[in-house]
Amino acid sequence: DTITAGQYLLVYNAFSFTFAAMAAATLFFWFGRSQVGPAYKTALTITGLVTAIAAYHYFRIFESWSSAYALTDGVITASGVGFNDAYRYVDWLLTVPLLLIELVLVMRLSQSKTVSLSVRLGSAAALMIILGYPGEVADDNTTRAIWGTLSSIPFLYIVWELFKGLGDAIERQPESARGLIKQARLLTFASWGFYPIVYMIPYTSLSGGAVETGVQIGYTIADIVAKVGVGILVYMIAVRKSEAEY
Amino acid sequence: DTITAGQYLLVYNAFSFTFAAMAAATLFFWFGRSQVGPAYKTALTITGLVTAIAAYHYFRIFESWSSAYALTDGVITASGVGFNDAYRYVDWLLTVPLLLIELVLVMRLSQSKTVSLSVRLGSAAALMIILGYPGEVADDNTTRAIWGTLSSIPFLYIVWELFKGLGDAIERQPESARGLIKQARLLTFASWGFYPIVYMIPYTSLSGGAVETGVQIGYTIADIVAKVGVGILVYMIAVRKSEAEY
Ligand SMILES: CC1=C(/C=C/C(C)=C/C=C/C(C)=C/C=O)C(C)(C)CCC1
Ligand SMILES: CC1=C(/C=C/C(C)=C/C=C/C(C)=C/C=O)C(C)(C)CCC1
Repeated sequence: DTITAGQYLLVYNAFSFTFAAMAAATLFFWFGRSQVGPAYKTALTITGLVTAIAAYHYFRIFESWSSAYALTDGVITASGVGFNDAYRYVDWLLTVPLLLIELVLVMRLSQSKTVSLSVRLGSAAALMIILGYPGEVADDNTTRAIWGTLSSIPFLYIVWELFKGLGDAIERQPESARGLIKQARLLTFASWGFYPIVYMIPYTSLSGGAVETGVQIGYTIADIVAKVGVGILVYMIAVRKSEAEY
Repeated sequence: DTITAGQYLLVYNAFSFTFAAMAAATLFFWFGRSQVGPAYKTALTITGLVTAIAAYHYFRIFESWSSAYALTDGVITASGVGFNDAYRYVDWLLTVPLLLIELVLVMRLSQSKTVSLSVRLGSAAALMIILGYPGEVADDNTTRAIWGTLSSIPFLYIVWELFKGLGDAIERQPESARGLIKQARLLTFASWGFYPIVYMIPYTSLSGGAVETGVQIGYTIADIVAKVGVGILVYMIAVRKSEAEY
């Protein structure tokens, strides 16, 4: 686990960047609340909560990372404090169900369908993250593979539900928003698929500090796309649908 | 009182998670104020106050916990500073009466009934918490049992009052909100009943760090359900009743 000074700084700056991006996105989404119809305000509230929660966690991740190493005269040493990997999973435990609920809300389905879809998708998401964590912090690759496989079961259920459950709903959306909704769903698939790929970096030929750096940068990029990227599309959908309906 | 590194980190991450969840819930409830009728704005203000006060206390609890121990190279040692258990009771002293008032407010009873129920329930709640604290910090299990028993008297009064006093009121609620109100009352009972159970963990076969961990995690889960869970139901009741009445 020897990390180089360059790797340390790359991750350090990526965390600082992501904190700023999440905080800025939060304000953008919340200011947008006043520009959409009543039915879409909750979706924008939640999009902003997702990025706000992420901003908090990236702040903590940044602090944890910088106290885990000491960089003096270009020489890097581990401080012994240890980087806390759990912040990321704790963040997901809150934000992933919210992201799914936000996708459901912007569809404006019937009340009962909204509640049942939110409960099912939210529970599956929590299960996926809880099962993934023991693998993420495991020392050996076999344990990692077992928990990763278990975690993939609720993951595949979510993907299937998004395709099937939302597929029908998309056909009933106003013409002007349909393309955007399909894009939001696609971006959700693409960004979510990135997480299990990052999780598998320890199985590649990379080793030592390169693995840690790859995992941290990988999850960070995925978080920005899944939260800010999808959030911007949700914002645009809310604006278009408000124009069509109000 | 030897706690393991794993127990320390579990509690540490649970406190950080709960801070984020309480802060996020606060913003959600306060943003929701603009989406309900005038009669329900106060209920949402208060729900948000409950989680805001909790967010503050979980921040302090988190800081207190992390300064009570030092984790270096995976080895945990007590720092000698001592974890401050009182934050939790101070939090309850503020939030429990508010939670009860919020339940009463969302019923929209007559003004005099609202005031008298709020005063009676609020005082009983304060008494329950004040009597419970000396037991929580007592070193021996006999002292703990005595104060716990005294604290249970106002506790049972509250439970009885909620069943009786709110039972009649529920029958006069709009059809569309009645089910949700019953759910809110049920979730209140279930989550409140969880606190005395957690209080009794020292009487189990658990010992050392497992007791401390069990108590902290137990109260934390109960707080999330009692504050965020019940708050979301109150929010949904306010939205449904606003639709029916405005
Ligand atoms: C399938 C799978 C995983 C999936 C993680 C996902 C899909 C996370 C999504 C996070 C999001 C969307 C965060 C942004 O808010 C894990 C846990 C890496 C473990 C390995 C198996
Ligand atoms: C009966 C009893 C207790 C009850 C505590 C309760 C019911 C606390 C509720 C707190 C809430 C609802 C906080 C959330 O805002 C104590 C004090 C543990 C002491 C043992 C006896």
